[in-house]
Amino acid sequence: MGKVHEGNSDVKDKKTEFSLVRVKSTWKSKLGKINKDAVDCVSAAKIYKSITDRGTSWTVVSPITFTYKVTETYGLLDPSNDTLLLGHITDPQQLEDIKTSNKPIRRFVVIDQEVFQIYGAKLTEYLEANDVVYKILALPTTEENKSMETALKILDDVNNFALDRRTEPIIAIGGGVCLDIVGLAASLYRRRTPYIRVPTTLLSYIDASVGAKTGVNFANCKNKLGAYIPPAAAFLDLSFIQTVPRRHISNGLAEMLKMALMKHRGLFELLEEHGCMLLDTKFQVDNTLYGHSSIKAASQSTCIAITTMLEELAPNLWEDDLNRLVDFGHLISPALEMKVLPSLLHGEAVNIDMSYMVYVSHESGLLTEEEKQRIISCMVGLELPVWHEEFTMELIQKSLQDRLKHSGGLVRMPLPAGLGQADIFNNTSFDILHRAYIKWSEELSVSSDSTCDV
Amino acid sequence: MGKVHEGNSDVKDKKTEFSLVRVKSTWKSKLGKINKDAVDCVSAAKIYKSITDRGTSWTVVSPITFTYKVTETYGLLDPSNDTLLLGHITDPQQLEDIKTSNKPIRRFVVIDQEVFQIYGAKLTEYLEANDVVYKILALPTTEENKSMETALKILDDVNNFALDRRTEPIIAIGGGVCLDIVGLAASLYRRRTPYIRVPTTLLSYIDASVGAKTGVNFANCKNKLGAYIPPAAAFLDLSFIQTVPRRHISNGLAEMLKMALMKHRGLFELLEEHGCMLLDTKFQVDNTLYGHSSIKAASQSTCIAITTMLEELAPNLWEDDLNRLVDFGHLISPALEMKVLPSLLHGEAVNIDMSYMVYVSHESGLLTEEEKQRIISCMVGLELPVWHEEFTMELIQKSLQDRLKHSGGLVRMPLPAGLGQADIFNNTSFDILHRAYIKWSEELSVSSDSTCDV
Repeated sequence: MGKVHEGNSDVKDKKTEFSLVRVKSTWKSKLGKINKDAVDCVSAAKIYKSITDRGTSWTVVSPITFTYKVTETYGLLDPSNDTLLLGHITDPQQLEDIKTSNKPIRRFVVIDQEVFQIYGAKLTEYLEANDVVYKILALPTTEENKSMETALKILDDVNNFALDRRTEPIIAIGGGVCLDIVGLAASLYRRRTPYIRVPTTLLSYIDASVGAKTGVNFANCKNKLGAYIPPAAAFLDLSFIQTVPRRHISNGLAEMLKMALMKHRGLFELLEEHGCMLLDTKFQVDNTLYGHSSIKAASQSTCIAITTMLEELAPNLWEDDLNRLVDFGHLISPALEMKVLPSLLHGEAVNIDMSYMVYVSHESGLLTEEEKQRIISCMVGLELPVWHEEFTMELIQKSLQDRLKHSGGLVRMPLPAGLGQADIFNNTSFDILHRAYIKWSEELSVSSDSTCDV
Repeated sequence: MGKVHEGNSDVKDKKTEFSLVRVKSTWKSKLGKINKDAVDCVSAAKIYKSITDRGTSWTVVSPITFTYKVTETYGLLDPSNDTLLLGHITDPQQLEDIKTSNKPIRRFVVIDQEVFQIYGAKLTEYLEANDVVYKILALPTTEENKSMETALKILDDVNNFALDRRTEPIIAIGGGVCLDIVGLAASLYRRRTPYIRVPTTLLSYIDASVGAKTGVNFANCKNKLGAYIPPAAAFLDLSFIQTVPRRHISNGLAEMLKMALMKHRGLFELLEEHGCMLLDTKFQVDNTLYGHSSIKAASQSTCIAITTMLEELAPNLWEDDLNRLVDFGHLISPALEMKVLPSLLHGEAVNIDMSYMVYVSHESGLLTEEEKQRIISCMVGLELPVWHEEFTMELIQKSLQDRLKHSGGLVRMPLPAGLGQADIFNNTSFDILHRAYIKWSEELSVSSDSTCDV
């Protein structure tokens, strides 16, 4: 299931391969070379058949192509901007048909309750101005409510709205939790209903919006139930970030820094130089104090963060490849985050994990002392915690053991190797882990008192 | 989302296309032609980037390949047959590793309660004999319990079993309802856990086992929530069918007849000639009365039914193409089935729908009178109802209108055109539908009194 095509060479060797060709309304399996002129269509799917002494065995190999858009815009709720309603449509004919039709557009919108308090009136105005037949469901999409129960509540309302799953994508507006729950609900409805992500936090802007993952918590475990179904589109409008508290901007900057450390020295230098300004301006372009440089840093940093994230996600949309740079900062932090809940935000826990791993890199000879210090200073500049007393050697060891179990017997530890470069390591010794831990605690346990005490 | 690759030519024209290449642990996006020698791997995924006046827009096109096996076997619960435990593994190295490992195999099994009463002891014996660490969950998997609640109950137990989603597929043993619920639960667990289907009814043997669909009922609607995730493997053992009641064999034969009428004259003639024997022998090979001919008819008919079904499903695994021959018999029957629940089995309702459609075909000049009569006689021979008083002209019209709504504005009606051939029609007039209905009722309302009165 979900295996890449290249992996099936063994299948081909032993079995008879059938191509599938369409002739009028019927698909027929054909042996050998296909005369493409004689058929209407050749499928990318194949069937391999073998006869054993116990009967027939068929192997089906069928590729499904996911296509989705991640689109930056501004004035998303400006009534003259039709991105929210039509920006997901890629077929020009379909777009034309909708624009010339006199049937009203219908949309079901799920929005985080707090976001609704700020943007509800504007959203309603937008939908009214565009003659949309709509239903807005405002929900408290907190970590505590990230459950199948909430997803089913959404589905009840979706069903009552008599949503047409071919033409009426469900719109989710909120932070990562909201986008994840709605994504799962949509993916389940009629086996797949398109949905649209509108992130309203910096973290979800550069992280949850970009990939295919949806999910809810289950049995006290984060995202234990979910699906890999990307949205039809994610529409990104930085203006939502202006109402995000400063601490939550730092929270998002942590995931941005992750991509910088793994893949992009330029992004690292940008965060190093302009991190404080990005916090002050909240990624807004009309800041009188900073002027044009704030526009540039905000748009450059988000653009690079998204591009680098997409590079890693697109070839591995269903996470079949267990070697993932995007796992940096996510090896020990989930256990830390759960242990001290709700005192650390996700990005904060990730940053503490990254800070420790920087010391592991340094001990492994992958980072110079200067590079190490530049990274830690950058983290402090982004107002992120770099140490935590609950991040113990025991927690590190237990987390890495758990990871071994779920990662096919290898620890697959992403580590920075120079600024903006990284690799994945499987044989970091206990000695290195321990030495790094001692040095990390010695150097940072004091300095972080000031930043951690939020 | 889910669009086939060919449909994206418009995307390519307007945007900059990036390939994705892996260099060590990092994926990089590259413009233009790739020098394959300089990189470790080229992904099938692409990213298209365009700069608009409102910001950057990325389009991700990422193919995921599903691979699954449908394998006929016998003696599936014979302790010496390792198909149930290892038959899903395609990588020879992995198979070798497991066989030589001294770690016990762990399996979570969900089985229908009634099936457990018959086969529970044998299943337990099988698992014990193979030193499997197991948990068997026997559940009443009836249409009434086909709910997210049941799926969550399964997931609770799966989680308590501490299942490893990489190496421990969940096994489902039962009829279509059981296979559908377990398939959905598995697809949700950790965003995708492999599962194995073992059908114990004729209907699920040739239908539910073959495709990718999973689901549960929701808000009084059949399969309103679900996923398109195929099993790792379906293991088919005809010996389970010997304990299926005769009426349920007919029920399965209806879906077999569907494939015969749509695609395979040989299968039709086989059912026409040997239908009664298949009912008498329940597809068992060791029948003293019929001997060798029963072996041949049973294995031939199931093999053709599965092959023709796979031909239609493999190129359209996620049902993106709305023109589907496998929808034959499924246009009016869902409404009929729900209306008279629980008096008609699924295949019975499908057959009544097919019987009427045969008259529509005849009125449309697609079937001769003789062909029409042969098909109806075959249905009667399979002990399937061919008429129902609740199958009214109103029900027909309402169902076709509903279908228009969910099928992109076209009715897409599959109709037989000759024996074992079919096409899809969009413009069948009310006049034809009505004339067919009158003739169908005149000719079959009497004869079906005897077959319908089960």
